[in-house]
Amino acid sequence: MRMHPKKHLTERLQRCEGLYITQTEGLCGQWNSRIFQNQNPIHIEIGCGKGKFITETAKQHPEINYIAFEKYKNVLIAALEKTQAECITNIRFLSDDAADLLSLIAPGECERIYLNFSDPWPKSRHAKRRLTHPNFLTLYQSVLPRGGAVYFKTDNRGLFEYSLNSFSDFGLRLHNISLDLHNSGFEGNVETEYELQFSQQGFPIYRCEVFFD
Amino acid sequence: MRMHPKKHLTERLQRCEGLYITQTEGLCGQWNSRIFQNQNPIHIEIGCGKGKFITETAKQHPEINYIAFEKYKNVLIAALEKTQAECITNIRFLSDDAADLLSLIAPGECERIYLNFSDPWPKSRHAKRRLTHPNFLTLYQSVLPRGGAVYFKTDNRGLFEYSLNSFSDFGLRLHNISLDLHNSGFEGNVETEYELQFSQQGFPIYRCEVFFD
Repeated sequence: MRMHPKKHLTERLQRCEGLYITQTEGLCGQWNSRIFQNQNPIHIEIGCGKGKFITETAKQHPEINYIAFEKYKNVLIAALEKTQAECITNIRFLSDDAADLLSLIAPGECERIYLNFSDPWPKSRHAKRRLTHPNFLTLYQSVLPRGGAVYFKTDNRGLFEYSLNSFSDFGLRLHNISLDLHNSGFEGNVETEYELQFSQQGFPIYRCEVFFD
Repeated sequence: MRMHPKKHLTERLQRCEGLYITQTEGLCGQWNSRIFQNQNPIHIEIGCGKGKFITETAKQHPEINYIAFEKYKNVLIAALEKTQAECITNIRFLSDDAADLLSLIAPGECERIYLNFSDPWPKSRHAKRRLTHPNFLTLYQSVLPRGGAVYFKTDNRGLFEYSLNSFSDFGLRLHNISLDLHNSGFEGNVETEYELQFSQQGFPIYRCEVFFD
C-alpha cells in the first residue's frame, strides 16, 4: 500500500504516547501487571486499521483489555486519536508486525485474536503472508490458552475458502460459520470501516470462529 | 415436488429389475456377497436424481460398487434406464428413504456417501429434513467405517452454511472446502444434471468433504 505521509505524524503519535506502546522490551507476559493494571482477559486485533472495530468493541466490553496491531503508522494514528478523543482506557496499540507476536505476548496471555479483512494476498506464491497460513496459526496457538479462539471475517471469498481449509487442516474446531454475515441473523456484529463500505455494495461478508482445543 | 406420473412406469421399472433392488430383506451387510459378487468398496449416493453423476462416476471407477438412493420413482426410472442402456454393472438403485439407511446398510459396509444438491429445506422448522442435520450425520456415522467420508455439494449458500456448522459441531474433519467449485482448480468434478444447468447461469457451487474419524 502506497500512502501519502500524514502531516506531523511523529508529533501526533507522540501526543498519544500512553496508548501507543513503542518500548516493548520486557513487556511479554507483563501486559496486565505493567500496562492495564488489572487482571482482565486480553484480546488482540491484528491489523486494526483506523480502529472503528476495536474502539467500538472496547467500549462495549470494559471488562476486556485489548491490544491492537497496525503496522502502518499512517493508518494507526487515526485509531490512536479516536481512542484518545473518546477516553477509551482498555486498548493499547502496537505498530509491530504479526510475525513478532511471540516476542510480545507470552503463552496463554491472550484469549482471543481478531482478524478482520486481512490482506488476501491472492497470488499463491504469497500464501505464506496470509494471516491464516499455518505458520501464523502456529504463532496464534503459542499465545492462546486451550480453548482460545481466532475470530475471523473477510469479504474475500478466496481468502475465506483458503482459511477454512487452513483451519481444518490444522485441526481447529470451526464454529458459527457465516457465508453472508449481514443476512445470517448473527447478533452483535461490530463493523469495520471497510466492512461498512463494502457491505453497502451488497457483497457478502464471510465470518467464522476457530477454537484451539 | 408434484410430478406427472410417467407412462408405463411400473413396466419400465420391471424391465430394470436387475438394477432396481426392491427386495431388501436380509440384504443389510450382504451387498457384496449377494449383489455385487466381489469385495470392492461401496459408495452411496443419496438422492441420485436422473443419475448423471452416479453413472459417470461409476464408469470412471469400475473398482467401486455404488448404491444410489432416489425416492421419486418418476425420476429414478431415468437413472435406471441410463445405467441399463450403458451396460453399467457396478450400480444398484433403491427407492428407499435416507432415513432407512440403518436397516439397509451394515456398520462400516459403505466407505463414502455422496450428497449432491440435496433439498435445502430453507425454513428452520424443516431443518430436521436437511440431509446434513445431525440426525442424518448420526446415521452416516453408523454405516461408515472410521475414516469414512461424506462428499457434499450444493448451489444453496444457506444449506452450505448450515451444513459446515452442522459438520463442525458434530466434530467432523472438513477437507477440500470450495466456495466456488468451478473456479477453484478442483479436478475430476463430475457434474449432476442440476449442476450443469445451474452453473451455466454463473452462480457458485459449494463443495466439501467431511471425514468421520
